[in-house]
Amino acid sequence: MQRLDQQIRFVTEIGKLKGVFRQTFLAGEGLNRHENSAEHSWHLAMMVLVLGEHAPPGTDLVRVTAMVLIHDLVEIDAGDLFLYADAAAQASQDAAERAAADRIFAILPGDLAGELRQLWDEFTARQTTDAKFARALDRLQPMFENLTAGGGTWQRHGITADQVLAKVALIEDGSPQLGAVGRDLVDRAVAAGFLLPAPSGAA
Amino acid sequence: MQRLDQQIRFVTEIGKLKGVFRQTFLAGEGLNRHENSAEHSWHLAMMVLVLGEHAPPGTDLVRVTAMVLIHDLVEIDAGDLFLYADAAAQASQDAAERAAADRIFAILPGDLAGELRQLWDEFTARQTTDAKFARALDRLQPMFENLTAGGGTWQRHGITADQVLAKVALIEDGSPQLGAVGRDLVDRAVAAGFLLPAPSGAA
Repeated sequence: MQRLDQQIRFVTEIGKLKGVFRQTFLAGEGLNRHENSAEHSWHLAMMVLVLGEHAPPGTDLVRVTAMVLIHDLVEIDAGDLFLYADAAAQASQDAAERAAADRIFAILPGDLAGELRQLWDEFTARQTTDAKFARALDRLQPMFENLTAGGGTWQRHGITADQVLAKVALIEDGSPQLGAVGRDLVDRAVAAGFLLPAPSGAA
Repeated sequence: MQRLDQQIRFVTEIGKLKGVFRQTFLAGEGLNRHENSAEHSWHLAMMVLVLGEHAPPGTDLVRVTAMVLIHDLVEIDAGDLFLYADAAAQASQDAAERAAADRIFAILPGDLAGELRQLWDEFTARQTTDAKFARALDRLQPMFENLTAGGGTWQRHGITADQVLAKVALIEDGSPQLGAVGRDLVDRAVAAGFLLPAPSGAA
């Protein structure tokens, strides 16, 4: 039973991700609160199911699904960092996330621990087609929530369209079609007054 | 763009599942609240990744993953029903869920709508190996949460060990190994005082 015990300890441990909250604000019935990283990960996996056809040829959607399901587990120890945090905060977050990955995946039997850690490393490095598509979904999903929330995080932090467009480049790198969706969302958000236009100096 | 628009409307619509709360109570840091159906679905998909080797030979884990990701979408309209509800409440819930499936999947382009609806129908009918394994995970996961919460839903509703064991039979039907895990969890919960033993008349 030792292998099964390790698997069950891991399944119990990761439930903690439901208590890690992101910057993203959710609007709507029963909501009006920050999003947690577990439900965010579910939303990304649903996006693989529904938007997977917009991945580049050769993308392995089974691997992408696994990546998006596990990509935030490290936040159980390291917490969530805001997308627009500065470089120093990002570097210290990276170290904390690697330490978290060392601890959390090691709860599993060695073969499973190795598989999931490899997927997480690949997602983090963002070099492969699979990882680039997974990262594109991770960038796109909060844009939907911000639009639903009438501005959400963008308004709370005074984010401007040019800052969002810089992140949309990363969506485009994972999927040209979804990059176009991202640019369209920025236009709609600016038109609706949910997102500040680029400051005139940045144009 | 019509196809993509439909896909994006669906992705936005399903975010509402984060506002549908289940009976399951989550204990721990940042928690101490009811579980929502989106994070519950994420937890099940993670269980497919980690416990998939305990599925019967021939189980298609890609289909099981899709099933558990979508299985609760109908609750956006129909809400969640407590596992120990009576037969009349169950029948009226079934009708509400079918109506919800008609509305929600139809947001998608026809081919995707058909695929996901078929998976949901299959999950609901619980006749295939894939559906039985998916349903087993859906029954097992709240047991982990109840144990973490020191009794959780079992204590709040005065549920007894024989009632839980009747549900464990359904886990066993999907996976003998996970059925054994379920029985072991019942024993541990009774020993810890988290779950009432069967009334003497039921023994």
